[in-house]
Amino acid sequence: MPEYGKGTSAGTAVAELGRADVDDALVRLAGKVLRTPVIRSEQLDAACGARLWLKAENLQHGGSFKVRGALLAVEHLAAAGSRGVVAQSTGNHAIAVALAARAHALPALIVLPDDAPGTKVRRIREAGAHVTFAGTALAERTAVVAELRERHGYDVVDPYNDPRVVAGQGTATAELLSQTAAQGVRLDSIVVPVGGGSALAGACLAAAGHGTRVMGAEPENVPAFTAAQRAGGPVTVPARHTVADGLRPDRIGDLPYALARPDSTRVLTVGESAITDALQTALWLARLLVEPAAATALAAALVHAREAGAGTDIGVLLTGGNVEPALVMRLLAHTAPAGRRPGRGTDAGALSA
Amino acid sequence: MPEYGKGTSAGTAVAELGRADVDDALVRLAGKVLRTPVIRSEQLDAACGARLWLKAENLQHGGSFKVRGALLAVEHLAAAGSRGVVAQSTGNHAIAVALAARAHALPALIVLPDDAPGTKVRRIREAGAHVTFAGTALAERTAVVAELRERHGYDVVDPYNDPRVVAGQGTATAELLSQTAAQGVRLDSIVVPVGGGSALAGACLAAAGHGTRVMGAEPENVPAFTAAQRAGGPVTVPARHTVADGLRPDRIGDLPYALARPDSTRVLTVGESAITDALQTALWLARLLVEPAAATALAAALVHAREAGAGTDIGVLLTGGNVEPALVMRLLAHTAPAGRRPGRGTDAGALSA
Repeated sequence: MPEYGKGTSAGTAVAELGRADVDDALVRLAGKVLRTPVIRSEQLDAACGARLWLKAENLQHGGSFKVRGALLAVEHLAAAGSRGVVAQSTGNHAIAVALAARAHALPALIVLPDDAPGTKVRRIREAGAHVTFAGTALAERTAVVAELRERHGYDVVDPYNDPRVVAGQGTATAELLSQTAAQGVRLDSIVVPVGGGSALAGACLAAAGHGTRVMGAEPENVPAFTAAQRAGGPVTVPARHTVADGLRPDRIGDLPYALARPDSTRVLTVGESAITDALQTALWLARLLVEPAAATALAAALVHAREAGAGTDIGVLLTGGNVEPALVMRLLAHTAPAGRRPGRGTDAGALSA
Repeated sequence: MPEYGKGTSAGTAVAELGRADVDDALVRLAGKVLRTPVIRSEQLDAACGARLWLKAENLQHGGSFKVRGALLAVEHLAAAGSRGVVAQSTGNHAIAVALAARAHALPALIVLPDDAPGTKVRRIREAGAHVTFAGTALAERTAVVAELRERHGYDVVDPYNDPRVVAGQGTATAELLSQTAAQGVRLDSIVVPVGGGSALAGACLAAAGHGTRVMGAEPENVPAFTAAQRAGGPVTVPARHTVADGLRPDRIGDLPYALARPDSTRVLTVGESAITDALQTALWLARLLVEPAAATALAAALVHAREAGAGTDIGVLLTGGNVEPALVMRLLAHTAPAGRRPGRGTDAGALSA
């Protein structure tokens, strides 16, 4: 596997990465991560007119799919004699690195944004990692990461620009493809949320040659992928607030951007109301608690389902379930549930593409 | 299989029913019901000190495990030339019979209590069944069922006193035992909620000879099984209100009572606060939306987990997920989620056994 960031360019790493790396990751992660279930909901299908296949990574160790890439990356560092790891993240990668470091008996330093959800901060500390807070923008966190790496001589586990992280995240999509194939279904498309881009890049690697279209979903308020497509490469976008805290990175990673086939990959942008509606839809119709980042993918999938129509099979990567109870309460109160048919809100035109 | 209720006593039916009937049901239901996933939660395990294995029947067709027994019973009636079916239920059996009748192109008449949740009423009607409301006590509903059967010449699908229904419900427990065994685990115990008793009776059939102890959980406010144990047989208890609408039958069915080994089976009674706390625990720690009946089993399992201690493997039958959004909102608001560590409420002494 290419050692990206150690003298290897994104272009070289992209050329060398492929589905075989995801298959290798599947083998290495076997028994260490959960093969999470794929959930169907007849009510959800009736509401959107297609068949949705929900990969429930909200039920994964650490509460998100990020443990896949983090375990793969930290396993490699530990084998290479690392003294400890440093990572920045809006939350889930941090939990994942903390858990992976504990599994390999390495110390972990985690840099979080000031507004990281308390639930995530708690889980990171429970895994024995040390937490530092640094502003709200990606650049602020990466500066602190660089400083901590220098001071301690630890290795950085990048949330996006690491081939192992991307290949690891790709195993969620690989499992989804294999679990649906086992039921005789070839997915027409898979929708994944886009923050730093590792889920999208991993999905593109995993689905290569499968005839399944990979689509992204990002908040209208942080359209980092769409802006990069427009600019012809990753750019930093103004960091407006989004409820999808997992999708707050204001710039796509170079490596995931290159892997995500930006010339042909479609990324839908999702409004804040549609994210909230989709979180409610997941809860009331599919009976799953997901975090807003995962709801962003579901929101986009519901829009895509209406375009694609009956008989279409759409996979949705429900990336995580680490969400504050208080935030859930606020989002559920967003429209009065009494008298309102659950899921109806997702019909509202709060989405743009 | 014995034709209970057609000249065959409960005792005779009990003597003739066994694990083989559950195995036969597994074969007949294959591909018609979901093999629902068994969910683990590291946070839940940490909170209770044992390993919990949650059988997520809230993700089942029709939103509850009841479709298992209903399909088996209606399939048999359809094959015998039935012209239509009548059923009474507090909700989930009714949805299940409506779906099963539709699958076999039979008309269905459903008798519900006046206070049946709107979500359940809607799902029954969506399945094409006709709904009649009748008071709040079991006796009121059974009287209307008898009248409808006479008038239309339809067949009754009893929610508890039917060997096929019991064997069908037992398949949920059989799957749980097989799914955990596939992971190298022999469950020490399985906790199931007790309303009319079909889940408990089915679990006893399925677990026969497995060395796994079957336990029940019923609301303190409708302790029909505990009262029957005390009286030496099924008795009608005063129907005090419980939030667990699925567990409102005020009398255990004769057949399930006889099958549930009342001399040795332990049934924990659960207070209303503990049911609410467990519903919150399922949502915040296991990320599953369950209905209060299922939460009743989880509440009892949490108490049992603390007695049984670390290293114990406890199965929990999360029987359903048909619950009103408005009720969920009310139950989640029951204690302020902000600042409160999720799941802590279940430590409160709101349970009695």
